[in-house]
Amino acid sequence: MDRALGLRLARATPALVALSLLVAAPPARGKERGLPRGYRTWVHVKSMAVTDPDHGMYGFHNVYANPAALRVLRAGGAEMRFPEGAEIVVSIYEVETRGGAVNAGAKRRDVVKTKDRTATATGGWRFAAFDPKGRPIAIDPVSDCHACHAGARKSDLVFTRFSP
Amino acid sequence: MDRALGLRLARATPALVALSLLVAAPPARGKERGLPRGYRTWVHVKSMAVTDPDHGMYGFHNVYANPAALRVLRAGGAEMRFPEGAEIVVSIYEVETRGGAVNAGAKRRDVVKTKDRTATATGGWRFAAFDPKGRPIAIDPVSDCHACHAGARKSDLVFTRFSP
Repeated sequence: MDRALGLRLARATPALVALSLLVAAPPARGKERGLPRGYRTWVHVKSMAVTDPDHGMYGFHNVYANPAALRVLRAGGAEMRFPEGAEIVVSIYEVETRGGAVNAGAKRRDVVKTKDRTATATGGWRFAAFDPKGRPIAIDPVSDCHACHAGARKSDLVFTRFSP
Repeated sequence: MDRALGLRLARATPALVALSLLVAAPPARGKERGLPRGYRTWVHVKSMAVTDPDHGMYGFHNVYANPAALRVLRAGGAEMRFPEGAEIVVSIYEVETRGGAVNAGAKRRDVVKTKDRTATATGGWRFAAFDPKGRPIAIDPVSDCHACHAGARKSDLVFTRFSP
């Protein structure tokens, strides 16, 4: 082998090994997935504000849906069933009330809900939360999310409704 | 001329005349344009609620921007300049406050603001309003819209800001 090429390969080997391990790694099970890319340009479903700072869902909420979730939300009705992969993002901000107006202030977090039949402990929905920098926030999806959403059986455990 | 063709042309003439008049008609000046098609799937800019029913802008507001307006709003900053054709729709709903949450209720109207250099009396923005069935609502764009927006000179007479 050409000596210069041999040297270059030897130097590159650790990086190549690391790269191949990364590519070959099985999907991270039980690990949080990231915030869906481009969710901020998904269609807006609705907004609302929970004004009591002591309420667990305190904040100004902007709700966005991916196309699979949107089709069901736009069709509406009391009964809804969402397909696998349907995804809803709720961006939650501080509530700023001044001059007779209720506004969204600084972002608190983004919450993601994804239809995933493997998430059997939470009714077939996977939950994740992210801080304003997109870093995962530790949550207990059963007690923090499903405990309340479980009440919305007719609408497939979804509370949000499309603002026409 | 072939007799059959002559007959067909004679029959078609009134329709052709009507069509050519329609095509040649000058743009309707001073007439309201319709609500932009598909605005509900434009990117959501922000939401807010004006809770005082006596306030002129009372209502739960959901703001949407067409791509030309969105580029400027996303870039943000204290100074903004919008290109011709930039368009912003504000959907205004009743404010429903119950159980510690502020929600959008029934739709009150949609308000449209379009950058149009011919609208010299209103700072280069054209304004229109529509009821929940999409029918134009009579407004005085100078006193009902521009009188207040004129104060926002640095941001090209636009109050809304993008919620990141």
